[in-house]
Amino acid sequence: MNCLNKLVLCFFCLIFPVALNAQVHPNIMLSKANVPAVRKGVQNYPLLKTSYNKVKSEADKALKTIINVPQPKDGGGGATHEQHKKNYLAILNCGLAYQISGDQKYADYISKLLLTYAAEYEKWPLHPKRKEGHEGGKIFWQSLNDFVWQVYVIQGYDLVYDAISPSDRKTIETHLFLPMMKFFTVDCKPTFDKIHNHGTWNIAAVGMTGYVLNKPEYVQMAIKGSAKDGKTGYLAQIDQLFSPDGYYTEGPYYQRYALLPFVIFAKAIQNHQPELKIFQYRNQLLSKAISTCLQLTYTDGAFFPINDAIKDKTYESAELVYGVDLAYADIKAQPELLDVAQKQREVIVSDAGLKVATDIAQGKAKPFVYTPQLITDGPSGNEGGLGILRYGNNDDQQCLLFKAASQGMGHGHFDRLNILYYDNGVEVFPDYGAARFINIEAKKGGDYLPENKTWAKQTIAHNTLVVDQSSNFKANADAAQQQHPDILYFNADPNLQVISAKETNAYPGVEMLRTTALLKVKELEKSLLLDVFQVHSAKDHQYDLPFWYKGHLVDASFKLNGKTDNLKALGTKYGYEHLWLNSEERAASNGGYVTILNNKRFYTTHFTADSSLMVKVLSLGANDPDLNLLESKAFMLTAPKVKDQTFVSITEAHGQVNSVNETTTGASSTVSDLKLIYSDQNQVKLSFKVKGKIYSYQINYQNKEKFIQLN
Amino acid sequence: MNCLNKLVLCFFCLIFPVALNAQVHPNIMLSKANVPAVRKGVQNYPLLKTSYNKVKSEADKALKTIINVPQPKDGGGGATHEQHKKNYLAILNCGLAYQISGDQKYADYISKLLLTYAAEYEKWPLHPKRKEGHEGGKIFWQSLNDFVWQVYVIQGYDLVYDAISPSDRKTIETHLFLPMMKFFTVDCKPTFDKIHNHGTWNIAAVGMTGYVLNKPEYVQMAIKGSAKDGKTGYLAQIDQLFSPDGYYTEGPYYQRYALLPFVIFAKAIQNHQPELKIFQYRNQLLSKAISTCLQLTYTDGAFFPINDAIKDKTYESAELVYGVDLAYADIKAQPELLDVAQKQREVIVSDAGLKVATDIAQGKAKPFVYTPQLITDGPSGNEGGLGILRYGNNDDQQCLLFKAASQGMGHGHFDRLNILYYDNGVEVFPDYGAARFINIEAKKGGDYLPENKTWAKQTIAHNTLVVDQSSNFKANADAAQQQHPDILYFNADPNLQVISAKETNAYPGVEMLRTTALLKVKELEKSLLLDVFQVHSAKDHQYDLPFWYKGHLVDASFKLNGKTDNLKALGTKYGYEHLWLNSEERAASNGGYVTILNNKRFYTTHFTADSSLMVKVLSLGANDPDLNLLESKAFMLTAPKVKDQTFVSITEAHGQVNSVNETTTGASSTVSDLKLIYSDQNQVKLSFKVKGKIYSYQINYQNKEKFIQLN
Repeated sequence: MNCLNKLVLCFFCLIFPVALNAQVHPNIMLSKANVPAVRKGVQNYPLLKTSYNKVKSEADKALKTIINVPQPKDGGGGATHEQHKKNYLAILNCGLAYQISGDQKYADYISKLLLTYAAEYEKWPLHPKRKEGHEGGKIFWQSLNDFVWQVYVIQGYDLVYDAISPSDRKTIETHLFLPMMKFFTVDCKPTFDKIHNHGTWNIAAVGMTGYVLNKPEYVQMAIKGSAKDGKTGYLAQIDQLFSPDGYYTEGPYYQRYALLPFVIFAKAIQNHQPELKIFQYRNQLLSKAISTCLQLTYTDGAFFPINDAIKDKTYESAELVYGVDLAYADIKAQPELLDVAQKQREVIVSDAGLKVATDIAQGKAKPFVYTPQLITDGPSGNEGGLGILRYGNNDDQQCLLFKAASQGMGHGHFDRLNILYYDNGVEVFPDYGAARFINIEAKKGGDYLPENKTWAKQTIAHNTLVVDQSSNFKANADAAQQQHPDILYFNADPNLQVISAKETNAYPGVEMLRTTALLKVKELEKSLLLDVFQVHSAKDHQYDLPFWYKGHLVDASFKLNGKTDNLKALGTKYGYEHLWLNSEERAASNGGYVTILNNKRFYTTHFTADSSLMVKVLSLGANDPDLNLLESKAFMLTAPKVKDQTFVSITEAHGQVNSVNETTTGASSTVSDLKLIYSDQNQVKLSFKVKGKIYSYQINYQNKEKFIQLN
Repeated sequence: MNCLNKLVLCFFCLIFPVALNAQVHPNIMLSKANVPAVRKGVQNYPLLKTSYNKVKSEADKALKTIINVPQPKDGGGGATHEQHKKNYLAILNCGLAYQISGDQKYADYISKLLLTYAAEYEKWPLHPKRKEGHEGGKIFWQSLNDFVWQVYVIQGYDLVYDAISPSDRKTIETHLFLPMMKFFTVDCKPTFDKIHNHGTWNIAAVGMTGYVLNKPEYVQMAIKGSAKDGKTGYLAQIDQLFSPDGYYTEGPYYQRYALLPFVIFAKAIQNHQPELKIFQYRNQLLSKAISTCLQLTYTDGAFFPINDAIKDKTYESAELVYGVDLAYADIKAQPELLDVAQKQREVIVSDAGLKVATDIAQGKAKPFVYTPQLITDGPSGNEGGLGILRYGNNDDQQCLLFKAASQGMGHGHFDRLNILYYDNGVEVFPDYGAARFINIEAKKGGDYLPENKTWAKQTIAHNTLVVDQSSNFKANADAAQQQHPDILYFNADPNLQVISAKETNAYPGVEMLRTTALLKVKELEKSLLLDVFQVHSAKDHQYDLPFWYKGHLVDASFKLNGKTDNLKALGTKYGYEHLWLNSEERAASNGGYVTILNNKRFYTTHFTADSSLMVKVLSLGANDPDLNLLESKAFMLTAPKVKDQTFVSITEAHGQVNSVNETTTGASSTVSDLKLIYSDQNQVKLSFKVKGKIYSYQINYQNKEKFIQLN
């Protein structure tokens, strides 16, 4: 498309239809023409009925409270913070209750609440609890929350637009929404034009407000950036924030969060300017992003908690209710999405929610299928990625996440070639996630704790190699952001799933290669987790390979030698200052094993290497004056002073403890004789026995056709 | 009843009917006359059908294995141990499968297996892994397991009796059962005549074998003791092992275990000698014991883990399936028991199971009701007891267990006046239970660990007062067994449930009184846990009152001051050697608070006392070379040097964290201004505010009518 065409399209899309459609309200998630059908659906389809009842109950609860628009003063989790959050949710809930019930009282409540905001908003200065390095809001301590506030509120306003008197609308728009637009686009211009999730929320708020208030200028800025040149704005964000596989570089926790403004604004664009075909944009990128976000969960629905992530977050979160409903109704009606919607136990009370609830009621759902896959990172898909290996059904699945993605901006962790391992519904080798008690005022106002930086981000907090007790890139985020690992190989063959990647920049002069597989052998029901971590350097280094584990260590090939008193911190920086050294033993030269009992199943990790190893047992908690750190335990393989090193491990899931019946079966691993036979830059060769049968396993780095040979 | 009458009864009951009925097989859990009805029931009633399918599937699995009767050599959890356990279960399952299906192959399997045992048994010496202080078995490392083996096996044998040829029966009886009877009654005579759960298993095995083999002599010994004088034996055990409230002195975990031989043998007696009216014995004691056992669980079905207890044990365990089915079918058809049977998801394939499954299918079940109650201990009910306070429905119940029971023999812990607190489906102030990885061979053969003695039994491991860093009775079990606390008061008023008890022997010259309440005030939805621990002494002592907690400490009234390095053990003995001192702070003179976040709910414990307090934060793990101890955390109130001391605390459950929606409500406690106004040996008076309203709470030890006054 040449420039002239672009110009014509812009004119056509952004000016004319906006002016034309702007008179219709509501027209975002719920569109006027669909209201009668949704009203009927609320009577007939269980999921929509439940969802509406919840909305209505929340709306009724709001109506019983006194209008409360406090002068902003508290940080995250504090009283004024929570009150303003309550208010925006009340506005959206009341808007929906008004549309479905037709009861004017809900509209009146919104009108009254917004008039109160309109009477106050312009007087409020920048939030007193704003922090350096974070753009402050007016209602909340950071501008991000103000944007979120408006994304909800403008939807509620759109829903009751026709039920508010023109004069009240004028007051609300003149003294609340328009000053807010000025704040968002002028005062917060840096964020508005930033390719970042905070920017997406800002843009969505501004663009949707533009549609609802019939201000095409704002819509245009939102889609094309403040300079309207397409270098920033919504389309640029879709282009740059996601990989071709729909991966958002900050990781799943933030992907979920980032998705919401993307999909809500997309729906607003679709309704007001269908000719933009926004859901088709970049090869249906938004659909891919939603689907990838779902694949980035374990079978309990919890997102893989890489980078700064709150660990209890699942795909039941509101953002993915929006995502799944819209993906199904507006992009592609995949029946597997209905399974997720059922697990979410709610739909949006909306056009899309109606369709989802109807089709579920008609029995169209099919089980959601988790698929082993490689998800590339980077706008062009060439900046590393995430490998996901899965074995077994959703009710008892082994799952291995291999992180070879790029740094993921400010929320990224220094965890190149990190692995997370799940089985039996629980974490086996977990990731700490973020050090944060979200919304707990007493814990630093609910914000990231100091230990997020000193611990959670550091390499040692992850299941990956640490060189010389330091972190990747010496924990320098800017340096890390410049480099990414490279994917060497990926194979989703159900019986031999493999992911291999290389990282050469994290430690100067050190090349790291990791190849991890889920290998199903016929002797066993579950697959084996086979992990080869190879490191090359011209100089001597200390190599530490920790395995953070859940459960209790019940057996080892060596005598445990727990420190009985005077527990010491393991180091002084890069997270080592937070580790207690609980025990330390030299493993026999040919390796050894450690057995963990976790959720009534045993996990034995056999290990070996080409130099002799120390095995350290660690727990978290040193140098933690505020007792912020959560209980965490690891065993760690250490090669104290070597150049090249290959760590090999096989983790077998075995046996069962039934504590109700007091029976134990399969407490001993059936894997034995793990041997590293050969290892150089081209090849690694190892062998092991399973129930006496010998397996030989070879990695050929230079041969993509026969990357793995198994005999 | 005079002696002559007794003699007549004995003669009538024990000799004549046994001889008469012995020809009928089967006649224990499943009786011959009922077989057609059970066969039909297996087709018609879902719970019986599922249960039978499980039995049959296990039986079919057994039939596919090679007969394996290994020479006994391994301890608990080891291969021969587990194989002999498998064998007895196979025998019972095959016996049932034979009766229901009529298929001879199941009987043949049992016959073949028992003939193999008969060929081996007499050659086996005492078990090589037997331990000092434990009576060794022949099949298992302790005789107990041999008794259990036979309780199962004799039932299976009874089920296929008629399907085994007389000559094979003769071989089995002559070379297995009769030598075993000799072993049980002669070699294991000390246990046979011991008033103890091991004795019950022995007696049940012997008595049931007596019935099935038509050897009245053994039945008589079982019921009346080896001397047949009633001083020991089954009836003496019912008299002495249970309190009038049906409490078994070792605690719920062992009560569950002890119950099984009681109820199975009772059923055998009932079928062979109904005129003994065994289920009516001692005012329906067995029914009470089953009901009490159920009441000694939290709403998740897990037994209160006082004394040596494995914590995952619930009323789903096989023993209570037997107990509940028999209690319903043979003693009293309480519809609430059907609710428990439904939660157990199985019934015994038996006369009783048929009745339970039928009545469930007919919709007769009513919800099981947990009732606040005092359960007395001691054969006469005057040796202290357990107070259970409960507030709220089963789906979100606050529950307080107050332990003022007697020592409970060898498995008892030194935890006089201990409390356990539950809420929201989880432990809030837990009990460690036993230090044991049951059936995990690598952990001391699955037996109690050394830390059971050095840690789990010690006073400091519990939520009760420790004087001078020592344990109750200096951890001398024999001394402790001689003394019991006294219950001062109990009230089950729903809005003010109170338990109060006194212990004067645990520490010489120290009187301890504890009064704990669940108090519902109208300002709050949940009740408050109000705890007053008073201690009197003529001399100075150090008083430590730990609160072991689950969750994470998120707030405190004082600045936390976590030890950053060189973590030290808190003491050198009585369990203190296992504690790390994580932080230590002086609380302000008027007390303070600590807030824990546990399972998304906050628990704030406000505390005060009549002398200033230190608050220590502790974690478990010092002096644990084998890494046997489980993660555990406590905050502890310490009065370093005082004579009299009153510790007052109020724990409020409040607020909610929703990490899917990222919302937090009610993070701050609404209780304030806790004040200890007055305290002496007659009275304690305190006041506090809830949402600004002042409450005054007074304990009058000398006034049972007005023991608690609340204004």
